[in-house]
Order: sequence, then C-alpha cells, then structure tokens
Amino acid sequence: MTEKQLKEILSEGKSLIEQRLKEYMSLIADENDPVKKAMEYSLMIGGKRLRPILTLQFCKACGVSEERAVPFACAVEMIHTYSLIHDDLPCMDNDDLRRGKPSCHIAFGEENALLAGDGLLNLAFETVSGRFGDISIPAENQIKAIGYLSSCSGIDGMIGGQTLDLMSENKSISLQQLIRIHNLKTGAMIRSACVLGAIVAGADKKTVECAEIYGNNIGLAFQIIDDILDITGDEKALGKPVGSDRENKKSTFPTLLGIKTSREYAQELTQSAKEALSAFENAEFLSSLADYLLHREK
Amino acid sequence: MTEKQLKEILSEGKSLIEQRLKEYMSLIADENDPVKKAMEYSLMIGGKRLRPILTLQFCKACGVSEERAVPFACAVEMIHTYSLIHDDLPCMDNDDLRRGKPSCHIAFGEENALLAGDGLLNLAFETVSGRFGDISIPAENQIKAIGYLSSCSGIDGMIGGQTLDLMSENKSISLQQLIRIHNLKTGAMIRSACVLGAIVAGADKKTVECAEIYGNNIGLAFQIIDDILDITGDEKALGKPVGSDRENKKSTFPTLLGIKTSREYAQELTQSAKEALSAFENAEFLSSLADYLLHREK
Repeated sequence: MTEKQLKEILSEGKSLIEQRLKEYMSLIADENDPVKKAMEYSLMIGGKRLRPILTLQFCKACGVSEERAVPFACAVEMIHTYSLIHDDLPCMDNDDLRRGKPSCHIAFGEENALLAGDGLLNLAFETVSGRFGDISIPAENQIKAIGYLSSCSGIDGMIGGQTLDLMSENKSISLQQLIRIHNLKTGAMIRSACVLGAIVAGADKKTVECAEIYGNNIGLAFQIIDDILDITGDEKALGKPVGSDRENKKSTFPTLLGIKTSREYAQELTQSAKEALSAFENAEFLSSLADYLLHREK
Repeated sequence: MTEKQLKEILSEGKSLIEQRLKEYMSLIADENDPVKKAMEYSLMIGGKRLRPILTLQFCKACGVSEERAVPFACAVEMIHTYSLIHDDLPCMDNDDLRRGKPSCHIAFGEENALLAGDGLLNLAFETVSGRFGDISIPAENQIKAIGYLSSCSGIDGMIGGQTLDLMSENKSISLQQLIRIHNLKTGAMIRSACVLGAIVAGADKKTVECAEIYGNNIGLAFQIIDDILDITGDEKALGKPVGSDRENKKSTFPTLLGIKTSREYAQELTQSAKEALSAFENAEFLSSLADYLLHREK
C-alpha cells in the first residue's frame, strides 16, 4: 500500500469517527450546557483518531463492514479523551495546553472538566450498550466487547498505568517497570481498540488473540517512538515543545536504552505486530500502518 | 412488617453487599496500591447501602433470589461512591469529611482520589459485564441492565444533576428546577437501583415501569426529608452538622415550600411509591421501607 493510500484511509476513518461523535453529542440534553460543551470541546479538538481507526480496520480485516464497529470505535475515543482531560487537571499533570489549545479545565473550569471526563467515560458505556440505537451484533458479543473495553480502561488497565506512572514520579525505574507502565497506560486502550474490532466482527478466539498481539506490540512501539521524538523531533512538525521528558527528569526508553537500541526495539515490536496479522483476511492497511507509525516524524 | 423485621433485612442486605464488595476488591492487582486502597477506603467506609439493597429487594419482589442481583447492586454502590469522591474534591464541594471520616482526597491525596473515582465508575461496568464471573442472566437482559445503569449515571442522569447543581450555586431557583436537579442528582441512581433489580429478575416492561415509579418517588421524598433534617435534625443522630444548607444559602424544599408543606409533599410521594408496588408479588419490605425512609430521623 502506498503512503498516499494509507493516508486516505486514515483521513476517511477520521471523518467517519468525528461525524458520528458529533451526532452522538447532538443527542445529549442541552440543559447540561457547561459540561456538555466541555465534553464536546475535548472530543472534537482533533487528534489522529488512531485508536478508533484501529477498531474500524480490525473489523474490516475480519471481513465485516467497518460501519458495524463505529459505536465501539467512538467509545474507545471517548475513553481516551476522558483520560486526557483528567490527566491535564491541576492535581495530575497540570497541563494548560492540549493539542496546542487550552486544555479542558482552562477553557471550562476545573469542576466542569472533572464532570466532562466522568461524563465521557460514562458515555462510552452508554454508547456500547446501545444508547444511540446503532448496534447490530449478537448480545453475547456485545457483552464480550463491553467486558474487554472496561477491563482495559480500568484499575487493572489504563487507570492502573496512570497509578504506576504517578508512583514512579521522580524515581528511577527499571526497563521492566517502564514497559509495564506503558503497556497499561497507553497500551491497554490501543490493544482494546484492536480487539474490539475483532470481537464486533465475531472473530474466533485465536483471531482475537492475534489482534491482542498486534495491539500490544504497536502500542509499545508507539510509545518508544514518542520518547525518541521528544529528543530528536522537530517542534514545528510535532506541534509541541520537545525536551519535556528531560526537563521533567522522566525515565524513558532512550534514557534507559539509548536512542539506537530504542529504535531497534521499536522495529522488533513492529515486526512482531505485522506477523500477528497473518490471521486476518485483509490486513494490508494494518501492516502498512505499523510501519508508518514506526517511521513517523510527528 | 415490624420495624425490627425491616431493620433485620436492611442489616442482612448491608452485610451481603459489603462482603461481595470486599471480595471484588481482593481480586484487583496490588501493584496499583495507592489508588486501589483509595477505592477500597471509600467503598468500605460505611453508609446505609440503601441503593444496592433496593436492587436486591426488587429482584426478590419479582420472585427471584436476590443473589442474582448482587453484582448489579454492587455496581450501583460503586457508582454512588465514585460520585461522592468526586463531589468532595476541592474543585467541587471541597469537603474534608465524609461520614465523619477524612474524605478520600484528604486521606489519599487529590490525584489518587481522582483516579479512585474514575476506577470505581469503571469497575461498576467491569462488574456488570461479568469481570467477577458471578452473572447468570440472559445476555439480552444484561445489556438492558448495563444500558439502564449507564443512562442513569451519565450526563443525562446523575452527572447532569451535578451539572445543574453547580449551575444553580448562589442563584435562587424555582421549585420546578429544584425537583429537576434532585430527580437527576440523587433520583436517577435510586431509580436505577430499583429498575436494575427488576430487569435482572427478567420482569416485563410494565413491572419495570412500576419499579421506575417507586424509585422516582422515594428518591425525591428521600431528598425532601434530607432537607428537613438539615433544619430540624439532631446532629448527634445524624452524625453531621445541621444548618449547612442555610449556611451555604442553598435552595431547598423547606426554603421554597416551608417545612409543613415539604413534609406533606414527601408523604404524597411515599404514597405514590407504595401504590406502584401492586405490580409485585412480594413487596412488603419495599412498602415498609418507603414509610421508614419518610419517618427517619437520620
């Protein structure tokens, strides 16, 4: 697949997700204005929509129309967004900017940002349990998807990763601990995005496991490249200042392994991710995406 | 039913719920210690466990063993607890005490309290989607229960009520607005508790609607009595200072209607709740409970 074709699919997926998210938000009562607006602001502020696109594309790779996966893909993006809102709060990372714009609590106040985060986490589960009437898969698979999603976002998944990350602040940690943190903090929801697509498509256990392997591997590779770009990246291309990890004295893959070994590690992970794709009918995009994420410059 | 019998059932329900909540928490990874401990602290700090008991008793009133409703009852309590943790945070009500003990963020720090709240909201959905292997109802009913629960706790339910409550701070509001706030802020989860019990028992649509009516009515009556007790109550019996509403210049039922009319309104609501119980096989406890909540002194 050419890079042009890949970018077209990414762009189509992004449009599809953003349109549906907008539709969902239009169905929420207007009386809750400040919090509804805060939810919408953070949800629509942009981003690559990588996670929901993975959900759509895994469904497609199993031979099922991506339309069926849209509500699940949107739920993954809602949970990702809520985690960013809460992460930016003063008691957490205290970040005033997100994607170059005022973060949610700067734009809407802390109390509305707190409730907007809660509201988005909750809305994810409303969405996958059928609030918007756009789910058409057997109830057993739907329960499986909700269970998988909730375990990845919860205390033994993403929230666990946020906890470990807080615990490791200003401490030197081992490579093993660093991997553990990222496998949970960013990896769990990337894995969930992949697996949900397969579950929604009605894939068998072995295929679902291959989606897990792909998700785990590109999730970690994604974080390693993020860490490298924080050292070598171009601020203009990235749209954010580089060097923040060093400033915050954070343990990262390059600080523990050096840049060269970190990049090799990301390459190995990408390779493993691509090998797991043999279980799928049509995984050309997912294979190209793994390479694209490895070589990205922003 | 005598008050002694009623209190026995309340006490048995409380034990059953607290035991299961403890079991669930023991199954969460210990590596997330500070947040896990914060979740457990707030979950086990006590309270009447009114909401989960309603879930158990509605299941029983439909002729089905209350055991089947336990995971759903526990989920309701988790969501109630998360909402209290987030409500107590400095950017919300900034309360240092909860049930006479340090609130979660005082005991564990704001960042851990934030994540503990997120973790409990998420754990509720993990629980009802089967994380703990204790659900044995048809998948269709399970989805129905998850959908109902999530709509009651979300932006058009409890979170919507919290939003309206924030918006009404330091403003004089109408009786209609006050009812709307409480129907969402406390009423939605009380209604959800009742309805979940009926759904889990496999009740038909009409019966579920009767559970809704009961929940709506006792939910509002509960709040009116709370408001009255904040004026007339005994601090020692209540375990919290009275007069806080007046101090905070909050609009309450007594400030808008006077104490006498407020009590009459609560009586009417209780009567309507009891009438809705005719749809159930065995609702003696639920009928006595409505009266007990009306006449409570704490």
